[in-house]
Amino acid sequence: MQQYFVAGKAQDEVTITDKDTMKHMFQVMRLADGDEVVLVFDDHIKRLAKVLDSSSHRFQILETLDSDVELPVDVTIAVGFPKGDKLEFLAQKTTELGANQLWAFPADWSVVKWDGKKLAKKGDKLAKITLGAAEQSKRNRVPEVTLFEKKADFLAGLSSFDKVFIAYEESAKEGETAALARELSRMTAGEKLLFIFGPEGGISPEEIAAFEAHGGQTIGLGPRIMRAETAPLYALSSISYALELQKSN
Amino acid sequence: MQQYFVAGKAQDEVTITDKDTMKHMFQVMRLADGDEVVLVFDDHIKRLAKVLDSSSHRFQILETLDSDVELPVDVTIAVGFPKGDKLEFLAQKTTELGANQLWAFPADWSVVKWDGKKLAKKGDKLAKITLGAAEQSKRNRVPEVTLFEKKADFLAGLSSFDKVFIAYEESAKEGETAALARELSRMTAGEKLLFIFGPEGGISPEEIAAFEAHGGQTIGLGPRIMRAETAPLYALSSISYALELQKSN
Repeated sequence: MQQYFVAGKAQDEVTITDKDTMKHMFQVMRLADGDEVVLVFDDHIKRLAKVLDSSSHRFQILETLDSDVELPVDVTIAVGFPKGDKLEFLAQKTTELGANQLWAFPADWSVVKWDGKKLAKKGDKLAKITLGAAEQSKRNRVPEVTLFEKKADFLAGLSSFDKVFIAYEESAKEGETAALARELSRMTAGEKLLFIFGPEGGISPEEIAAFEAHGGQTIGLGPRIMRAETAPLYALSSISYALELQKSN
Repeated sequence: MQQYFVAGKAQDEVTITDKDTMKHMFQVMRLADGDEVVLVFDDHIKRLAKVLDSSSHRFQILETLDSDVELPVDVTIAVGFPKGDKLEFLAQKTTELGANQLWAFPADWSVVKWDGKKLAKKGDKLAKITLGAAEQSKRNRVPEVTLFEKKADFLAGLSSFDKVFIAYEESAKEGETAALARELSRMTAGEKLLFIFGPEGGISPEEIAAFEAHGGQTIGLGPRIMRAETAPLYALSSISYALELQKSN
């Protein structure tokens, strides 16, 4: 069943006012009176709703659904600005794989240079992508996207997390393979995890030192070299496997 | 260091004859006499090699390297023909994530219809992608790509595997979360695993029955709905996490 996010507090009857949502509901999907959809308000709870009046875009809530598909830990993926449209790719894929936030920052070895105007535009585009992907994946939340113009602001944000992991290729080369599994086995539900990835060129030694000074630890992601846009998908899949599939055994 | 695959048996001295490899070595990378690269022959062993004579494309092997980055189990990813260039995407990403083979077949709910001529052309393109991705990921093997024109031939291939998993969205909806972890914990090194994924529309009930008749079992991949091209990446990442990162604890 089609799912939509609706800004605001949950109510028994609701009128859709967001233009894109209205368009998708009544022009693309051609919803008619009595048709049912799932609506998710700011409380992240899914509710079954029925069209009361398609001409005025009014819905009535029928019941609360107990489907919660969020990861048990709160994962933020942070990447150094990557080239081309890789951030768009990551916005879609990290949403499908359960991230709660996507952050991006100007890394020492980022090739692209994006100013505030470009970042605002890119942020709008990414927000649309995460919204669409969250609806398709039946998420309870739309991941928030934050693009940092200054690395100092990104660094200042590190203190709000319980754990900070730095994906580091050299860890893999040195044969470090156990850290991720060890750290995930120690995590408890609701903890906040930040996982930092470099751009194509990797993370500079100065950045590693700065992240470590803010409590970060380097983590290897297996023996194969992955592209910048692939490693975050590996990390999120592993977190899901460890905390959703294995914990249920 | 740059890595290249060279067809044939390992030799102490080797002359590169493949045109694409020659071009990359001597035009793109501008290798000069004495420069070093890694060469991988048909025995999948990495060897350090030095340019003896760049004009005649001759190399001398210096030493054998003990780097083996292959997954401990032999994983084939099979997908119903997906739309657009998703097979190209999967060829690159499944190579980065350690697959040994990529198979594709005409599924009941595949939208695209590809004939033999189209498949031959697509196969050539995919082989170039897996070769490039395998060199970049420093793999010991280049995954083989097989595109089946007839589903019957794909089905006949199922008997050559020790395990056949069917990625099935309904399993996740029914709350089945433990099968993948349970099955992976039972696998031993060298076993052959086939993991089947549907196209965008999913796997038809008749296909599920046919795969099960050939020893396949349905497997859930967590609570979130993933796109057709994302689920195989989740599966490969989980296999790597379980068998490479956790086993080393």
